[in-house]
Amino acid sequence: MHFLKEINLKTEGFTDIIDVTPHISSFISENEIKQGWVTVFTRGSTGAVTTIEYEPNLVKDFKNAMERIAPSDMEYEHKKTWNDDNGCSHIRASVVGCSETIPVSGGKALLGTWQQVVVVDFDTGARNRTVYLSGGKT
Amino acid sequence: MHFLKEINLKTEGFTDIIDVTPHISSFISENEIKQGWVTVFTRGSTGAVTTIEYEPNLVKDFKNAMERIAPSDMEYEHKKTWNDDNGCSHIRASVVGCSETIPVSGGKALLGTWQQVVVVDFDTGARNRTVYLSGGKT
Amino acid sequence: MHFLKEINLKTEGFTDIIDVTPHISSFISENEIKQGWVTVFTRGSTGAVTTIEYEPNLVKDFKNAMERIAPSDMEYEHKKTWNDDNGCSHIRASVVGCSETIPVSGGKALLGTWQQVVVVDFDTGARNRTVYLSGGKT
Repeated sequence: MHFLKEINLKTEGFTDIIDVTPHISSFISENEIKQGWVTVFTRGSTGAVTTIEYEPNLVKDFKNAMERIAPSDMEYEHKKTWNDDNGCSHIRASVVGCSETIPVSGGKALLGTWQQVVVVDFDTGARNRTVYLSGGKT
Repeated sequence: MHFLKEINLKTEGFTDIIDVTPHISSFISENEIKQGWVTVFTRGSTGAVTTIEYEPNLVKDFKNAMERIAPSDMEYEHKKTWNDDNGCSHIRASVVGCSETIPVSGGKALLGTWQQVVVVDFDTGARNRTVYLSGGKT
Repeated sequence: MHFLKEINLKTEGFTDIIDVTPHISSFISENEIKQGWVTVFTRGSTGAVTTIEYEPNLVKDFKNAMERIAPSDMEYEHKKTWNDDNGCSHIRASVVGCSETIPVSGGKALLGTWQQVVVVDFDTGARNRTVYLSGGKT
């Protein structure tokens, strides 16, 4: 059996990091997934999904690392296409990736104690962000 | 139910980026996946799968970003093993990753308007590249 | 049908890279997955899953690349939270990602000849690491 849920997030952009682990827990219990999996996917080309220990200082470190991978003060060719200023956002999103899949057992996502599933909004402004949870069970 | 399809691409290497979104759409309709998911996986250790706004200038930006992560003009230890010149290709592939999973609803992949699924060939020459689509439905 | 298996690894940390491909092969044959998929997921926020050509020199190159992405001799804000010295480990793990999904056909994972599935332990010391294999078949 396959289950799908749409989550709508209000995000601030600029590598805003949102913990979606509680949404995953609700999804698992709503669909009574005892054993199975959940895929977390973010819609759009300036967002990403990953896991992190969700604490404010590490969140700062993650933002700093993204500045090294795709600096926000660099010139991007993308600007020539739409005059958009979010070239760095797109690159970061493509490097981190749009999906992760987490196994479920005993009715719980098999995450580590300090491992939260997060959606990252790399865009250069506040926006609404759509995230999908896609899961299955035996 | 599970569905599998092999896609064969001719690629140019050197961070050649191929939009495989139309293949995903065909796969979904061929297998009548109303609700479910599609995993895109690239075979081989110098290719990767991600999503991006597929427009030529951003494609250039992505190539530039890969040069920062694993420069092509650096010395790699890998050269000592096989005398291969594609150390940078392997590193980029491992960082970006070999698979992404996209949910499907209403018979469509739930991608954003500006979000295309791409296979990246980081190798240092033209080659044939095998990609698999693996999907399921309720 | 869904299958789940827990793998326990002893790792050395410091970007220790462990080839888990043999575990995937065993998992596929134990569960008689002729056609389907296997997701490899690592538990914890300082580990990651990716594919690589698993040979010692490329493993060195991967470690060097991780030093560029998140240097181990840098100051991380994360240290202020728990006095942990593993800020670099967390960042590397979040960039590389916690899961990959590999299709299966003919009772085999559809990996390339030189493509191995690896778990990377970025933590700053030896530890036990839990990895889950989550698979399905037609």
